[in-house]
Amino acid sequence: MESIIEQTSNDEVFDRIFHPANIAIIGVSPKGSGFGSGIMNALNAIGYAGGIFPVNPNGGRINGKELYRSLDEIPCPVDLAIIAVPAERVPQTLEKCRTFGIAGAEILSAGFSEAGTTTGEALEDEIRTIAAKGIRVIGPNCFGIYCPASGLTLLPGPDLSRESGNVAFISQSGGMSIDLAHIGKWMGLKFSKVISFGNGVDLRETELLEYLGHDRQTKVIAMYMEGVKDGREFLRVLRQVAAHKPVIINKGGLSKAGGRAVASHTASMGGSKVIWESALRQAGAIQVGDLCELAQTCLAFSMLPIMKYQGVSVAGGGGALGVSAGDLAERFGLDLPKFDDALSERILESLPRPGSSARNPIDAANPFVGPDAYKQVFLLAGSDQRIDVQVLIQLLHHFKAIALGLGVDSVKEITPYRELSIAMKDAIDSTGKPIILVMPEFKQGQDSLDITDLIRETRQVFLERGIPVFNDLGNALRALSHVSQYAQFVRSLGTN
Amino acid sequence: MESIIEQTSNDEVFDRIFHPANIAIIGVSPKGSGFGSGIMNALNAIGYAGGIFPVNPNGGRINGKELYRSLDEIPCPVDLAIIAVPAERVPQTLEKCRTFGIAGAEILSAGFSEAGTTTGEALEDEIRTIAAKGIRVIGPNCFGIYCPASGLTLLPGPDLSRESGNVAFISQSGGMSIDLAHIGKWMGLKFSKVISFGNGVDLRETELLEYLGHDRQTKVIAMYMEGVKDGREFLRVLRQVAAHKPVIINKGGLSKAGGRAVASHTASMGGSKVIWESALRQAGAIQVGDLCELAQTCLAFSMLPIMKYQGVSVAGGGGALGVSAGDLAERFGLDLPKFDDALSERILESLPRPGSSARNPIDAANPFVGPDAYKQVFLLAGSDQRIDVQVLIQLLHHFKAIALGLGVDSVKEITPYRELSIAMKDAIDSTGKPIILVMPEFKQGQDSLDITDLIRETRQVFLERGIPVFNDLGNALRALSHVSQYAQFVRSLGTN
Repeated sequence: MESIIEQTSNDEVFDRIFHPANIAIIGVSPKGSGFGSGIMNALNAIGYAGGIFPVNPNGGRINGKELYRSLDEIPCPVDLAIIAVPAERVPQTLEKCRTFGIAGAEILSAGFSEAGTTTGEALEDEIRTIAAKGIRVIGPNCFGIYCPASGLTLLPGPDLSRESGNVAFISQSGGMSIDLAHIGKWMGLKFSKVISFGNGVDLRETELLEYLGHDRQTKVIAMYMEGVKDGREFLRVLRQVAAHKPVIINKGGLSKAGGRAVASHTASMGGSKVIWESALRQAGAIQVGDLCELAQTCLAFSMLPIMKYQGVSVAGGGGALGVSAGDLAERFGLDLPKFDDALSERILESLPRPGSSARNPIDAANPFVGPDAYKQVFLLAGSDQRIDVQVLIQLLHHFKAIALGLGVDSVKEITPYRELSIAMKDAIDSTGKPIILVMPEFKQGQDSLDITDLIRETRQVFLERGIPVFNDLGNALRALSHVSQYAQFVRSLGTN
Repeated sequence: MESIIEQTSNDEVFDRIFHPANIAIIGVSPKGSGFGSGIMNALNAIGYAGGIFPVNPNGGRINGKELYRSLDEIPCPVDLAIIAVPAERVPQTLEKCRTFGIAGAEILSAGFSEAGTTTGEALEDEIRTIAAKGIRVIGPNCFGIYCPASGLTLLPGPDLSRESGNVAFISQSGGMSIDLAHIGKWMGLKFSKVISFGNGVDLRETELLEYLGHDRQTKVIAMYMEGVKDGREFLRVLRQVAAHKPVIINKGGLSKAGGRAVASHTASMGGSKVIWESALRQAGAIQVGDLCELAQTCLAFSMLPIMKYQGVSVAGGGGALGVSAGDLAERFGLDLPKFDDALSERILESLPRPGSSARNPIDAANPFVGPDAYKQVFLLAGSDQRIDVQVLIQLLHHFKAIALGLGVDSVKEITPYRELSIAMKDAIDSTGKPIILVMPEFKQGQDSLDITDLIRETRQVFLERGIPVFNDLGNALRALSHVSQYAQFVRSLGTN
């Protein structure tokens, strides 16, 4: 019983931190410079609707409003403090927050253990002691919390999305947290919570992972970690969480130089590459090599059914892509089952001849095959019981040549991307098998912003119909293979 | 002597093909549809300045001009024929071209061995016989030749660049040839020749490689191959050429499904993965896994000195990138040498404190460090004799927050990208060590076209100063490692 009670009370604290009714920002300069006013402006810009109380002991005004000289002047209870005062004043500020009854504090200030100074270390010890007396701390040397549902945002994040989703991200690096939040906005990743914990003197990887493991808004958990404070305990919690939610981990600093960068970045130890990789794998984590793979993998987990994928069909215009498809599928442990003559012939009826082939990969001879034809192709290919998932490759830049030929100004006008998304959605609904769209961007010149715009709008339209979009076939298949491997891991637990 | 004479005469033929004074396009429909009128419009659009003679036995008019009913009506000698008639009429058309004294023919038509029919095979045999009597053939089932110097372009390539460069590309796949040509235009790859040879009944991988091996305009040779006609002879020529020019090869169809796609794409055999990979490596080829890696590798070879690279410095804003840098360098066999205290302290003098670190990677704490500061950083880091090449990472999207803060409409206006390119060029000139720019594009939403535009303009400005630009640090280091490995291969030949 005790652990349940503790969990409930912890959840209450976390709820006040992630969904604060009132926020105090301590260390707002009347000049409008620095982290304090930066985060205040970001909160206003993203539309945080609760109370914001900027504090500066020297007073002054900002945006036409008087600054509070101390927490005591604030006329209501405060849930979350954002601390941006110089490092040496952080402990006393935090202690004041604690006695004022604030549930948690994000410390954005730098100049602690990451600076490699004994002063920095000592200041962190003080913070740790105060936190233990009853206030939870995120940071220091972090970018804070992004929670679209409540309107909390990261330090330089005035323009992040307000759409909530099922992906959570715990990041030791502030840069990675804001980068993924930006990437998510256009890639279609929607977040429950993004937490940049920096030096992590109090809340860090293990406790945050445990919390997100039972957070109902979170279905997929991503982590960027450099060092781990208590490896054994972390792996225990990881095993527990990974058994029912995918945990995607990018472990930085597993090389010599990477480890050195870790030390000056968040003052932790990287650890041995081989040991970490094998321990994380055994605990059921999905390991990724960099930020892009992390984002793509989260997208696949958040949008696709979590199941074993083996057979893939790939269709698109341009034969070389088909050849790549076979090679790439093999690299990621997937198959392109060969269609039999009868099915292949029926698929070919919808495609231009000569020039098309339909053995899987399905090579559509030219990039202008229309939505109705592709719908037929995907209904037929999806009827093969060996196919678990289908991939459509579109090279939309070719439509510009058509627009030029027709004398039409806008390539968007003549490209049937919306109809194509409807056709694909129909094929998904009829076959019960997911479809992935791949849109490589081969034209990225200054004269091709219209094509870029078309690709972005097409991505949006497909995402709205629940179809994940990747820029590269290899990236798509790699992400898919992560989902498939996780599904098999979970199944293997069930049979033990 | 004989081989030299033959070579000279071959070169004369190749010269007429790549730099034709007059082109006949046979199979131009008066309706303006099909490959024939497509390539005619593309040649006009790209500004080919020689004579274009459209032929159709049934006559008619196109673009207000009378079509020629036969080659005999053309009033001048023709160097190159582009054939776009239906497959069954290709042999007689080619024979007519030969007797008319045309040096070479691109056959764009499909419907040959790739269709898997005996008719198709038989037609190819006829083509081969005619070619042997004295006309060189590119294709069939190909997209033709792109040669910026002469204004030849690929089938759907009206908008390719007219800037010549030192990269040649031989591609069995038409799709890959046009894709790389498009990618090159914005990525900064400039081409001497791009040749899509399709089914390759006459000219194909070996002879084209040999020709480009002694082509003075070509410094870097890229190849996309599916099957090889005579493996032993190809490897012999490859060894010869790779000893003095880098040959970058993407071999498709090395998996089961990939091999099947090859069969229906260009009617050749893929071959065993292990055998091919080891044979190509021994012959000195640089092997790449896909089109993107091919393009990035060509960029590195065409813009960077070909030498052994070991020590790399990496500088940028955002610590996690630095951690990645160490991990990635190790993955690609490169080092990030740790700077000593004195150098590190001197570098830090130019960077914001606290928050920066300068052990290598050099973490600039925020993304707004200016050109003068970076110039100092690169001069200092470049003075370490262990450093062979330097990498600058820029996250330009952060400047949008500044533009918003300043109430400035255009993010371009307030981003010092031009000054930064000058600062980096100065650092290259002073240190004698190359610099690479990495610009990840973390914001790709429909609301971020202005950032995309900024990134594209910045890429252009850096390319103009001879600085290669990559979108991802891993991609940059991988390309660099290819250059380094090739330099070591060439050196190993010299010491044998």
